[in-house]
Amino acid sequence: MPSAADLAAFRAFADALADAARAAILPHFRADVAITAKDGPRGGFDPVTAADHAAEQSIRRLIEERYPDHGIIGEEFGEKPARSPYRWVLDPIDGTRAFIAGLPLWGVLIGLTFENRPILGVIDQPYIGERFLGWTTAGARGATLTTAAGAAPLKTRACETLTNAIIATTDAKLFDGAEAGGFEQVRQTAKLARYGCDCYAYAMVALGGIDLVIESGLAPWDVAALVPVIEGAGGEVTDWRGRALTPDFFAQPNARAQIVAAGDPRPRDEALVALRRAAK
Amino acid sequence: MPSAADLAAFRAFADALADAARAAILPHFRADVAITAKDGPRGGFDPVTAADHAAEQSIRRLIEERYPDHGIIGEEFGEKPARSPYRWVLDPIDGTRAFIAGLPLWGVLIGLTFENRPILGVIDQPYIGERFLGWTTAGARGATLTTAAGAAPLKTRACETLTNAIIATTDAKLFDGAEAGGFEQVRQTAKLARYGCDCYAYAMVALGGIDLVIESGLAPWDVAALVPVIEGAGGEVTDWRGRALTPDFFAQPNARAQIVAAGDPRPRDEALVALRRAAK
Repeated sequence: MPSAADLAAFRAFADALADAARAAILPHFRADVAITAKDGPRGGFDPVTAADHAAEQSIRRLIEERYPDHGIIGEEFGEKPARSPYRWVLDPIDGTRAFIAGLPLWGVLIGLTFENRPILGVIDQPYIGERFLGWTTAGARGATLTTAAGAAPLKTRACETLTNAIIATTDAKLFDGAEAGGFEQVRQTAKLARYGCDCYAYAMVALGGIDLVIESGLAPWDVAALVPVIEGAGGEVTDWRGRALTPDFFAQPNARAQIVAAGDPRPRDEALVALRRAAK
Repeated sequence: MPSAADLAAFRAFADALADAARAAILPHFRADVAITAKDGPRGGFDPVTAADHAAEQSIRRLIEERYPDHGIIGEEFGEKPARSPYRWVLDPIDGTRAFIAGLPLWGVLIGLTFENRPILGVIDQPYIGERFLGWTTAGARGATLTTAAGAAPLKTRACETLTNAIIATTDAKLFDGAEAGGFEQVRQTAKLARYGCDCYAYAMVALGGIDLVIESGLAPWDVAALVPVIEGAGGEVTDWRGRALTPDFFAQPNARAQIVAAGDPRPRDEALVALRRAAK
């Protein structure tokens, strides 16, 4: 496992990576950019922007300079094999549909895994100027939100029951039939539901604004950065059976997962009663 | 009609009102605030926060000092009759569900009507620090986005067909049966849909990020501030038959409207084919 000094160095380096991504992306946000649709596992509309490519390239360049032995896997440019237990897992713009609509709820996702377990994650919102950073190793766990006003610790909130829970999903239309039925049952019990937030919904779990995020079809680069932020803030990320995500999942670019991120396990356990029936 | 000098004075005053609302609201955002559910025309979850009340009270106080003859109508504190053709139309926090989830897509809505026609509107997002301001009178029309980086003109974008359009609605579950059918038909034709943005979606129409916003059950204070921002940026706001909103609508606190805000009339006219069948 990484030492405390290693972890501190990785945290500072992740900050530098997020700074580089901000510089690459912000000139393109709300500007006219070439957008091409690509086919993806979601089957729907999943645009790639010039910003997406520029950010991933600049992050990859910095990693290759500083940690040439580390592996890299990113949504846009595939896999660079590791010669060490460390691998960086990148989604330069999670929430491209929000991005092209001008909505500032997309984020830069930068995760670091050790032996395919997430130990460090950044969810960065460059336009608003918010950086959610979390870490979770055997010896240390925590999460912070840094803005122009400074850094503050993140803490999920207590939520006793699903009827009091605020839930979120990116797009209820992305679920298949059984999944949609399970989600709809949870939604009808929950206090209210929010849509279309992508990674930002997970940041709100860490902040204590949202209680549950329920999604399916997520790739390793959609998830790796989220886990340390949620867990560092006191929450949990599981699949739709309530199981922790395995190193196997993070090892395979083609893996897809059904995810529940919870600030408090109690409403999550209620939701799992409905979700488990649609678990894959 | 107001003179150019009147309009300039109202614009500066609307800025001051939005500043006061920011100061009243920001201490409550992402803090623990007392939230009570209230019954509303939407029948669903519609929380009122301490911030909502504090902001409307501080706006009302400033209006009563500066323009004691002007009328005021607000979501939280009802109607103050006018002794002049001017009336301020207020929704201190539009998007309370986003607000309580910690999501920064709520906004302060400040509208000014002259003989019940909207002539000036502000959509303010205090946390991000964005102020969308628009005006539309017989002699002048325009809209700006002001941030810490300065002010820039707002312009809707051209969009030839519905298949290329990005559409938005706050919550597809708020539609009744016929409305839901009409919206679903539009959604299936459109390029992509975004949800849960409340007034922020209208700001994105003015900015050229979103092409159509389609909603129903909106009250005068949900709409009055939006119209000058959209029209000032080159767009149009109509009902589901394509008709302009009438002074009657803005005159009556209990009125509710089905709304389509469009950056370009062409995809709107396509959408109206489906929406008109569910028009009230």
